[in-house]
Amino acid sequence: MYKLIIDERGKKYLTSKNVLQTDLGKVYVKDKEFGDIVFSSTGKKFYILKPRISDICEKMERKTSIILRKDIGYVLAYTGIGSGDVVVDAGTGSGSAAIYFANVVKPKGRVYTYEIREDFAKIAEKNFEIANLKDYITLKLKNIYYGIDEEDVDLVFFDLPEPWVAIPHAYKALKVGGFIAVYTPYIEQVKKTVVALEKYGFKMIKTYEIIEREIEVKKEGIRPKTKGLLHTAYITFARRLTKM
Amino acid sequence: MYKLIIDERGKKYLTSKNVLQTDLGKVYVKDKEFGDIVFSSTGKKFYILKPRISDICEKMERKTSIILRKDIGYVLAYTGIGSGDVVVDAGTGSGSAAIYFANVVKPKGRVYTYEIREDFAKIAEKNFEIANLKDYITLKLKNIYYGIDEEDVDLVFFDLPEPWVAIPHAYKALKVGGFIAVYTPYIEQVKKTVVALEKYGFKMIKTYEIIEREIEVKKEGIRPKTKGLLHTAYITFARRLTKM
Amino acid sequence: MYKLIIDERGKKYLTSKNVLQTDLGKVYVKDKEFGDIVFSSTGKKFYILKPRISDICEKMERKTSIILRKDIGYVLAYTGIGSGDVVVDAGTGSGSAAIYFANVVKPKGRVYTYEIREDFAKIAEKNFEIANLKDYITLKLKNIYYGIDEEDVDLVFFDLPEPWVAIPHAYKALKVGGFIAVYTPYIEQVKKTVVALEKYGFKMIKTYEIIEREIEVKKEGIRPKTKGLLHTAYITFARRLTKM
Amino acid sequence: MYKLIIDERGKKYLTSKNVLQTDLGKVYVKDKEFGDIVFSSTGKKFYILKPRISDICEKMERKTSIILRKDIGYVLAYTGIGSGDVVVDAGTGSGSAAIYFANVVKPKGRVYTYEIREDFAKIAEKNFEIANLKDYITLKLKNIYYGIDEEDVDLVFFDLPEPWVAIPHAYKALKVGGFIAVYTPYIEQVKKTVVALEKYGFKMIKTYEIIEREIEVKKEGIRPKTKGLLHTAYITFARRLTKM
Repeated sequence: MYKLIIDERGKKYLTSKNVLQTDLGKVYVKDKEFGDIVFSSTGKKFYILKPRISDICEKMERKTSIILRKDIGYVLAYTGIGSGDVVVDAGTGSGSAAIYFANVVKPKGRVYTYEIREDFAKIAEKNFEIANLKDYITLKLKNIYYGIDEEDVDLVFFDLPEPWVAIPHAYKALKVGGFIAVYTPYIEQVKKTVVALEKYGFKMIKTYEIIEREIEVKKEGIRPKTKGLLHTAYITFARRLTKM
Repeated sequence: MYKLIIDERGKKYLTSKNVLQTDLGKVYVKDKEFGDIVFSSTGKKFYILKPRISDICEKMERKTSIILRKDIGYVLAYTGIGSGDVVVDAGTGSGSAAIYFANVVKPKGRVYTYEIREDFAKIAEKNFEIANLKDYITLKLKNIYYGIDEEDVDLVFFDLPEPWVAIPHAYKALKVGGFIAVYTPYIEQVKKTVVALEKYGFKMIKTYEIIEREIEVKKEGIRPKTKGLLHTAYITFARRLTKM
Repeated sequence: MYKLIIDERGKKYLTSKNVLQTDLGKVYVKDKEFGDIVFSSTGKKFYILKPRISDICEKMERKTSIILRKDIGYVLAYTGIGSGDVVVDAGTGSGSAAIYFANVVKPKGRVYTYEIREDFAKIAEKNFEIANLKDYITLKLKNIYYGIDEEDVDLVFFDLPEPWVAIPHAYKALKVGGFIAVYTPYIEQVKKTVVALEKYGFKMIKTYEIIEREIEVKKEGIRPKTKGLLHTAYITFARRLTKM
Repeated sequence: MYKLIIDERGKKYLTSKNVLQTDLGKVYVKDKEFGDIVFSSTGKKFYILKPRISDICEKMERKTSIILRKDIGYVLAYTGIGSGDVVVDAGTGSGSAAIYFANVVKPKGRVYTYEIREDFAKIAEKNFEIANLKDYITLKLKNIYYGIDEEDVDLVFFDLPEPWVAIPHAYKALKVGGFIAVYTPYIEQVKKTVVALEKYGFKMIKTYEIIEREIEVKKEGIRPKTKGLLHTAYITFARRLTKM
């Protein structure tokens, strides 16, 4: 079972081992319970916690860049996805989006996630297990450009290089009132996505960019963090409004 | 039962009535099913849909400003709140935050929401009913400054004028590893919140501002929307890391 | 001669008349000197000031949207335009950009500003007079798409619907080391501008967007202004680096 | 005399030497004219240019952080500073703000810049010489907290740790209609600045933050730069409106 360990500086570690190696010394975590405090071999304090989904997505293994909380959170709130909903997600990547979706649709909802690369799929499967969400996620080693098997879906989420190819499949898969959300780093992708959404019958098409600013509250004073992330991607939403 | 009705311009209506009055004419919605298209008395097209949580929060009755999706989404993703979690929310206001939380924690989780104004509570109760989430939300007509009844809570969310007063209660209520998220429009409130969080034992204290930019994709060209919302509030997060 | 008048609320008026009509009463400004305080017919306080360039650009007559200080300021600082420099500006519009340029290049520098609409030119001429900068600005009723008469120019500034048409003229007009700055609201215009800049020999091509956030410091607290301007335009800069 | 040299990657060098050492080889620049192209010892292309003020401020020696063009440009445009104006600037730092001001107020205007650290002053003096602006700038080795010698000033610009101390001096120094602009990284400094401005008679008090976003236009697509600067400082403006 995986434990979340946090050191005095706020640095997080995710481990299933008995001993954690850090630059602040060795930490023996075997037999420790969530809520315990442990001191490392160099006398530094470490907190032992049950990892939450957000901890897991932050620290789990990945070979791809993952969707950030500012973006996945906006998708969750914009579409109102929740308990019992059915979500189609592609490509899986490291599994971060699928984990966030499964965490809110379970126990009765389900996430179907499409990935064509076996190496990514392997990592994602392991991450679903760490997050204890394997039972609510179906990973498909399939190219979503060729079609979506599911029907009556509440949300289709695309983080793909050419999402427009799969947009007609998304329309067919969605239930009336359901959402598509398309995550694309470049503005040209937004344009092609919007054109395809219009062509294949989607309505209520809107594109957003979400910007996160950390505010540092320190002894010297309060100010926005001076350096950091400026852009991840645009998110384009649309909706199927009719049966046809 | 409430229906979501969308006109050709994308304008949304939420109604339980048989006839909807709009500036595009009367719309007879009785006996209509979700997915149907109806034409108004002036011949305009209207879509009939099952409202999702995000539709309900957008169109429901309110006497207060409500938390926007950019902010509630960030809280959802930052804390990883999901199925089975227990959330304490104060003040209830129109019930928007409680609805978003209940939508993801149900069926086994629960939201306890505190409000001191009876008029707000009445509106919120009605909104919980419209959202079909009454069974998962406990509304308490109580002042959270005096205490929190619940224990072993996953998330405490404050949208209060003086959140620092209730911060010691939040610490006691939270389970180890649980989050507090404090929503405050002014920077002085952030400062007082951070000071109180530090004083009462919270760790991993971080403040963020989330900025939403709509990108307009039109025939004339693509550009960010020229006018709109610049600021809602800062969100300060912290975590209980130990049993004591 | 024009006077700047400011009321107690901070509202500005620009007038050459003897009596100013306002919603706070009549203000007799004849024979008043800069620095005087006058009371209106309803007893409200008004300040009489010599208008600065920034006041004039804010209050002068216009039939077009004008370039905002966040954008014109960025052009000034990015290109380092100053005393003695020669600037080509098109289209003139209400004359705001030309006024800002003339204000810093005078007395030995010069601004050549191109406009095809006579009605705009007339307003701009009047604005140059109010700003007392007529002697440093040459207004040309000419279409800059057909060519630029000037040579050895330090800065070419374009606020045009199709700036790429005039980009080869700009290259010819610029001195070695000189800058072009292109102001365009839409991202497609940025793309076409960059392609043309590359094609016609420009180097050091960079595009920026400048965002202004007002911070309100009030008794209730400090926070960014809640509503306002989100986007004006992108500014693309490039440079001529060789004689050929 | 200093030359600006730009390599094929767009990297800039500022030098008065005959030979420039770079990671792309040695570049012999003696006897080269502005507009020449030179090839380095490894065959790479280099452009020889006359440096503009903006180049000098970017590449000159400094021991302090310098004010960025987004911020100094906003000050220039907000206050409309130009030919013939008198500016007081403190602290001098590396001289960047004084250079920008001198570049637009010359030949008849003047910049008085206050600095208490001799090492900074020495570097600034050298930078003024490189920028060929020595004749228009008076550097004073004085603490501006103790007073401002000048009168009838158009703009007072403060980049100081405790600007509020010098605010009464600024009021006395300014002409009627003149501006103060105060540059402060922290929000607490903004608050103290605004309180002092109100106390000492300033009007039209406004605070802004200017955010620069670079837009990358590449073959892969267009998008805002992904990482970079998020915050430098707030700029608070105010104005003296009366003789008293």
